[in-house]
Amino acid sequence: MKPQFVSFRSLRSYDLIDGVTAKALFGEGAMLNLVELAPDAVVPSHSHPHEQLGLILRGSMTLVVDGARHLLEEMDGYTLPGDIEHEGIAGPDGTLVLDVFRPVREDYRDAAGAS
Amino acid sequence: MKPQFVSFRSLRSYDLIDGVTAKALFGEGAMLNLVELAPDAVVPSHSHPHEQLGLILRGSMTLVVDGARHLLEEMDGYTLPGDIEHEGIAGPDGTLVLDVFRPVREDYRDAAGAS
Repeated sequence: MKPQFVSFRSLRSYDLIDGVTAKALFGEGAMLNLVELAPDAVVPSHSHPHEQLGLILRGSMTLVVDGARHLLEEMDGYTLPGDIEHEGIAGPDGTLVLDVFRPVREDYRDAAGAS
Repeated sequence: MKPQFVSFRSLRSYDLIDGVTAKALFGEGAMLNLVELAPDAVVPSHSHPHEQLGLILRGSMTLVVDGARHLLEEMDGYTLPGDIEHEGIAGPDGTLVLDVFRPVREDYRDAAGAS
């Protein structure tokens, strides 16, 4: 895979769910997903086999992981192993979070490509 | 591996090279490395087998990859395959960049732990 250099500002965004959009950059075995959540937007509880890491860039978000609530604010980071149940709830000012998935989420590649 | 929730603000930083410090969060097969470069700091040309992805959070940086110069500014992202030669040169206002490595860089785990 060749090196890639892109501006996230000019990347096209795709819809993840109501009130949640994302811009993705796909590497070989991992990807960046810059996710913007509207105020109080909810990503319902779900799981995936991919490991997930993230950093809150703006705003706040509550991650509910295995039933425990974790309030994350700007410059808070997290790691989630694969196959763990988690839910995301944006704070009152919304959230900008950089998510990392390993390996690449092919469902997101499809979604990003279709937008 | 259990989920982790950390504040990068309170993570201890470790020295990567003169004028370059980092704070690391280690997942299972990937890691986040929040790197701060002083104005005009230089990370000399090097390579590693790990895939690297990144996002410029503040300031600017020139990445020289296989001899080609790429000026990256805030919200610019990149992916580099493993084993590619690259050099980083911070802009005049310094750089804050979130780097992702896959797999985890054990040399950074050692360096972060020793700090």
